[in-house]
Amino acid sequence: MARFALLLEYRGKKFSGSQYQLGARTVQAELEKALSTILREPTKVILSGRTDSGVHALGQVAHFDTSDDNLDLWRFNWGLNGILPSDLAIKAVQAVPDKFHARFDATSRQYCYRILNRSQRSAVMEDSHYFVSYKLDHKAMSEAAKLFVGSHDFVSFKSSNGDKGSTRCNVSRSELLNLGEGQLELWLEANHFVYNMVRIIAGTLIEIGLGTRAISSLEKALEECDRSLTGPTAPAWALSLVSVTYPEHFHLFEANSEWALENPNRKQ
Amino acid sequence: MARFALLLEYRGKKFSGSQYQLGARTVQAELEKALSTILREPTKVILSGRTDSGVHALGQVAHFDTSDDNLDLWRFNWGLNGILPSDLAIKAVQAVPDKFHARFDATSRQYCYRILNRSQRSAVMEDSHYFVSYKLDHKAMSEAAKLFVGSHDFVSFKSSNGDKGSTRCNVSRSELLNLGEGQLELWLEANHFVYNMVRIIAGTLIEIGLGTRAISSLEKALEECDRSLTGPTAPAWALSLVSVTYPEHFHLFEANSEWALENPNRKQ
Repeated sequence: MARFALLLEYRGKKFSGSQYQLGARTVQAELEKALSTILREPTKVILSGRTDSGVHALGQVAHFDTSDDNLDLWRFNWGLNGILPSDLAIKAVQAVPDKFHARFDATSRQYCYRILNRSQRSAVMEDSHYFVSYKLDHKAMSEAAKLFVGSHDFVSFKSSNGDKGSTRCNVSRSELLNLGEGQLELWLEANHFVYNMVRIIAGTLIEIGLGTRAISSLEKALEECDRSLTGPTAPAWALSLVSVTYPEHFHLFEANSEWALENPNRKQ
Repeated sequence: MARFALLLEYRGKKFSGSQYQLGARTVQAELEKALSTILREPTKVILSGRTDSGVHALGQVAHFDTSDDNLDLWRFNWGLNGILPSDLAIKAVQAVPDKFHARFDATSRQYCYRILNRSQRSAVMEDSHYFVSYKLDHKAMSEAAKLFVGSHDFVSFKSSNGDKGSTRCNVSRSELLNLGEGQLELWLEANHFVYNMVRIIAGTLIEIGLGTRAISSLEKALEECDRSLTGPTAPAWALSLVSVTYPEHFHLFEANSEWALENPNRKQ
């Protein structure tokens, strides 16, 4: 038995989320189908965490076990990308210790929520950005975003149908970037996230940006545990899971800076 | 009669290029259909220049004439975006002098060609980047790109089925940007471009990056007029027309920095 970690990318649009659901097209189901085909044995994967229907990933992490402990990782990665659908790709594969666990060993996750704030809709960004046509007060949103940094109980920022479990999260980054021409990015990093947390934070910050909610309302929302104190859940298609962090001793996907292959036909 | 200019965005994937063709879905045909519906009179548009099937635009410019010289431009823009298909959007509309011409008055066009250079394909960038899995020598490509700046005859960089007309172009910008994680952008700006010029330059620079072509070959290609001296035409889906420039006295789309609308319900 050998354990391997996968670094994966997907476009969320045509997936009913990441986790296996009977009869639905999910990231887990497509991945397990491809792995089972290539490894010629039923193979299960464990993802670092679930992403909702529509949410994209640039650096989701998963692990799986196989009885083939002699895998040629290069060929295996190319083979996987050859049979996976075009909206799901494996960026890297790496052998990991048997005790590595994609979910339990993750020390933080980083998400990005993209907003397009201009008067007219976009034909190019419609699948990646939430379009807000009323002018947002970037300064107020940026100031408000910073209040999430630290250890807080995020019950007020959790959808009621989420899992039970701890609602205390250590937020290490909460920042609004202004990329110009109306493009805003909300970056959040935390040890863990409660259900729909980034989307509810985005919906709440947008209300602050629209001037229909005071920044001071956030303190109450973080103190009292009440979903009605926060804004709407912003749409899924503007959210991306950017990266998942693991303890350094796993040296996970460190070789990614040298991604491309040497051209065997190089003459110059 | 009044003349108006349009600033438009489109995703090229489902268009058979920009220019009208009988029976094909083109940007011009979709635009004229929407304009004729809203203006209630047959309306023709003139684009700043054509883009090929698959090529995207972030800042294409067009003009049209209408007998309605009392247009409410805000409402008109919203109405247009309401009936246009989702892969075509109007960013701005502006009244222009009757002598303004979207094609003949354009002083320069700016294009961006996107390359993804890593070992495995992407699920997120497959519609916007040309994927090259062999390692590219960025330094050699960047050095080679600079050789295009200036006034040259680009016959060797023109597809044989292109229009007749001048092949001399004044290139004011030719630059390769390295955005990290394998993302490269080739930016080109010129007073005009010959048919497929950016895609042939991209294909030629990629050969230089792969080490199968010497930088010195470019001098010969620019001096002698021979398409066989240059590389292949790189694929269309990685190319975007970013912007078109006009003489300052037209003050075209200068108000774009104030795109978003004030929220009438703002309380803060």
